[in-house]
Amino acid sequence: MTFDEARAAFPVLERLAYLNAGSMGPLSRGTAEAMRTRLYDDLERGRGGGAYIEEMLRLRADVRAALAALIGVEPQQLALTSSTTDGCNIVLAGLGLGPEDEIVTTDAEHFGLAGPLHTSGARVRVARLGDGDPVGAILGEVSARTRLLALSHVAWTSGNSLSPLELKRETGLPVLVDGAQSVGAIEVDAAPFDFYTVSGQKWLCGPDATGALYVADPDRLHVARPTYFSQSSFEPGGAFTPTEGAARFDSGWIAVPSLAGLEVALRQAPDWRFERVLAASERCRALLAEHFDVVTAPGQSGLVSFRADTPAALVARAAERGVVIREIPGTGLVRVSCGYWTSDGDLERLLDALV
Amino acid sequence: MTFDEARAAFPVLERLAYLNAGSMGPLSRGTAEAMRTRLYDDLERGRGGGAYIEEMLRLRADVRAALAALIGVEPQQLALTSSTTDGCNIVLAGLGLGPEDEIVTTDAEHFGLAGPLHTSGARVRVARLGDGDPVGAILGEVSARTRLLALSHVAWTSGNSLSPLELKRETGLPVLVDGAQSVGAIEVDAAPFDFYTVSGQKWLCGPDATGALYVADPDRLHVARPTYFSQSSFEPGGAFTPTEGAARFDSGWIAVPSLAGLEVALRQAPDWRFERVLAASERCRALLAEHFDVVTAPGQSGLVSFRADTPAALVARAAERGVVIREIPGTGLVRVSCGYWTSDGDLERLLDALV
Repeated sequence: MTFDEARAAFPVLERLAYLNAGSMGPLSRGTAEAMRTRLYDDLERGRGGGAYIEEMLRLRADVRAALAALIGVEPQQLALTSSTTDGCNIVLAGLGLGPEDEIVTTDAEHFGLAGPLHTSGARVRVARLGDGDPVGAILGEVSARTRLLALSHVAWTSGNSLSPLELKRETGLPVLVDGAQSVGAIEVDAAPFDFYTVSGQKWLCGPDATGALYVADPDRLHVARPTYFSQSSFEPGGAFTPTEGAARFDSGWIAVPSLAGLEVALRQAPDWRFERVLAASERCRALLAEHFDVVTAPGQSGLVSFRADTPAALVARAAERGVVIREIPGTGLVRVSCGYWTSDGDLERLLDALV
Repeated sequence: MTFDEARAAFPVLERLAYLNAGSMGPLSRGTAEAMRTRLYDDLERGRGGGAYIEEMLRLRADVRAALAALIGVEPQQLALTSSTTDGCNIVLAGLGLGPEDEIVTTDAEHFGLAGPLHTSGARVRVARLGDGDPVGAILGEVSARTRLLALSHVAWTSGNSLSPLELKRETGLPVLVDGAQSVGAIEVDAAPFDFYTVSGQKWLCGPDATGALYVADPDRLHVARPTYFSQSSFEPGGAFTPTEGAARFDSGWIAVPSLAGLEVALRQAPDWRFERVLAASERCRALLAEHFDVVTAPGQSGLVSFRADTPAALVARAAERGVVIREIPGTGLVRVSCGYWTSDGDLERLLDALV
């Protein structure tokens, strides 16, 4: 697949410099078409009966296998969720931590991770990242009471990697990685970690409210939030035999049209996508650095963030010119998301709109 | 709106005797069209920028208000969820019960309620309903340690009401009602209860993975499973100021096309729907009672269940004849769902297929 072919799959790119995959990726024509087809099947044939259930289960298995392969883990280690937030809640509720336990996290986390940490019952120690080395700041918060490191692979604010693999190797502690800004943007090997979340609607260009959670050892995490998919049998009162593998953590029904769309989205990404993301974000970084204080280091992922005096005004000005970017509230940062589909023309439009 | 007009909205009824709303309701042409329109807007215009977010928030507010009005409560008391299971998990995790506390439930509950009860930390006492009076059986399990009654309004197995209002009045205890088989099928006033769940995809004919949870007093339930919608501001580490009202319990992002579809589904139900559901299920009951042991009492809701020697074979035979019904695993029951759209012709096809 050539770059032009890959790009042509996304109608929004004909109209806008859509640089927003860190929030929601562009949808492809094929993804929307698969959703529409499934929706109209449901309309005409109903949502019931053996064939409907079989197809739903087939789609779940297919999407589970494709997502597992993408992050280098076994399908039996992957739960289907509706978001990274879901994944974080499943892990934090399932660990059963108490006030004597500590979790180390950073001050750059999205509420999708930070909220579940706060409600976990453990004491949360927050590493202040500032502009220095994230690994040193995080290790500085680790103590004998640390039960979990919980952090993004790539910070949604600065776009910088927080080096989770180095932290895992240094500490040997259980690590929960928020993969919202990594999976689909950069090559990810989740296997060395204990828990790793996936967002379907961002860099994977899937339908909204799709995602996954990698659990290295499903038997060592409590099912704190059971759904129908969690059990293979149950007694009155709810005692149950858990489903084999990480499917016991499946967060619930995922709309069948969304599964059909995600299946196509996962299949259609070109095999050169990760190189192209890095090339596009490096080009974006270089262009922006001529005019702004860019906080993203080279060679990170698809995000490029820079400081602005009036971020909201800058984002609004860009929007008027057909350029979709966003601010990161409370940080003074504007964030640009570069995907494998991003062209030099998109980046020229960005610069024209900003400068 | 006449019966014929209301029925004509559902294409599946032209083909099948679709008697399955207790699992998933039929989709209307208008609902699917609203979803398709929104999906193709997302495809062409992208899923980002101010207008997209505003429209998403407007749809959430609109759906919240419509669902609240439907069950007689304030929008500030309603959280948007993706299922009844979600709602039950939110309540049970948020109550913070321990092993000294007891919850009384029944042996007729779906795993969507039973699973969350089991993982709540409380002791679960199970009333055995048998064929007798459910109120007596449930009251028989109540003790000084009971902190919650948790039960269906209408049992998904037998189709019979478990009289939650009488139980609330008798005991004055906090009551969590599983409304999966009531909301949209019969008139529901959730206001006397403490918690009440709504399924969007069953009797309301909404898109899959939609639902709601009524929380009478949001300030008295802990936010145990925070999502981005739970907070109006947060600190690093996750401490947060909860959103005003029950929106703090919103279980996460709901696909925007699904919100658009649910909005239409909620608007289009005719005002005579509840009388018609009872009339259709009564007719169904009378027809089935000539040949089977029907376990559903008169005047319940839209479900009619009957005993069968070989439920799976009977359901399969019906499916071959274009009649969609289901068995209730482990009970020996076959269940028929009659909606306001169910015609005498549908019921004749049912009988022809079964007898």
